[in-house]
Amino acid sequence: MNDHGPFPENPEDTRTAIMEATFQALCEHGYANLTIQRIGEKFPKSTSLLYHHYEGKDDLLLDFLDHMLERFEERELSTVSQTDPEVRLCSYLNHAVPSDGQPSNADFLKALVELRAQAAHNEAYRQHFTRTQERFHEYLAGVVSDGVADGTFRDVNPKEVASFLVTVASGSMFSWATTNAETAEGARAELDRYIEKLILSDE
Amino acid sequence: MNDHGPFPENPEDTRTAIMEATFQALCEHGYANLTIQRIGEKFPKSTSLLYHHYEGKDDLLLDFLDHMLERFEERELSTVSQTDPEVRLCSYLNHAVPSDGQPSNADFLKALVELRAQAAHNEAYRQHFTRTQERFHEYLAGVVSDGVADGTFRDVNPKEVASFLVTVASGSMFSWATTNAETAEGARAELDRYIEKLILSDE
Repeated sequence: MNDHGPFPENPEDTRTAIMEATFQALCEHGYANLTIQRIGEKFPKSTSLLYHHYEGKDDLLLDFLDHMLERFEERELSTVSQTDPEVRLCSYLNHAVPSDGQPSNADFLKALVELRAQAAHNEAYRQHFTRTQERFHEYLAGVVSDGVADGTFRDVNPKEVASFLVTVASGSMFSWATTNAETAEGARAELDRYIEKLILSDE
Repeated sequence: MNDHGPFPENPEDTRTAIMEATFQALCEHGYANLTIQRIGEKFPKSTSLLYHHYEGKDDLLLDFLDHMLERFEERELSTVSQTDPEVRLCSYLNHAVPSDGQPSNADFLKALVELRAQAAHNEAYRQHFTRTQERFHEYLAGVVSDGVADGTFRDVNPKEVASFLVTVASGSMFSWATTNAETAEGARAELDRYIEKLILSDE
């Protein structure tokens, strides 16, 4: 790095191009078979630029994960005050716990599960995924809290409900990415029963 | 292998010793840093025996995972008809979704999450974890079905409840093994509310 930050020429454009190349290479090769060289094959500029900016594959991937979390936060902030709590909750669950077990971004989610598994023994990955889980938890607790306040939801404990739902979402992604077990549809049906009977208000 | 199967001398003793060595090495080194050599360091006999029986680390680990599943099935069969459904359900949940987020076999579970993440791109691991998830699902559906039959539980759909609970269990393990987020206690409290309000009978 120098005084101009990591990307001196058109810094945002270059970083965005690196992030896009990383996304494509991750979807195609997964984590274990990913190399800087393979990311370079998706990158319109010289691969040497990647070696210049990053110490290695994990350094680049951790920056990529931060970039993805920033994008989630930008999207969230742009919609958070516009939509009612039930719509926001359903939208989250439809993404995180798809009933057909066929998420639209399947290749990416498989790679994400591999990256998250690195956190079992790698402290930098662990710090990232702790922060991600805490952000999703905070987002959901806010949605539930808003729903309790406006009477859409029952008088539940927002933090406990949010903790439960991030756990269900993690389990859905992990199950889907690592098994062919046909549990997605049943899990979603029972999740919907839980939401209807214990979260949504009677009225 | 030869006509005497994989372990010609004291076949069960040798396999058990290999499985114990694998367990210890996995707990100590995790998946990424595991080698046959490191398993050999925990094995009382010659490491060359490991190379003789297995094509490589993943071949040995897949046999180890089958061995763990067999042990679960033996334990389950020995208790399945002796205990009432509520005790069996609570026992499963106390193991799978510990409220303090501190499972007793933490090092092993971290390694298990790494192994399961291999299933995102490795078909042999995927087949194993599909079988494991199906066995846990079948076990839980049986517990719930028994509880509905004897009136301990409400008239719920055993397969849907089982699908939901294996998803929660997967999510708990994945969250615990890969983050320091303090969601375990809240998730368990809300799971207990779900069990009390939607699964256990009123009576």
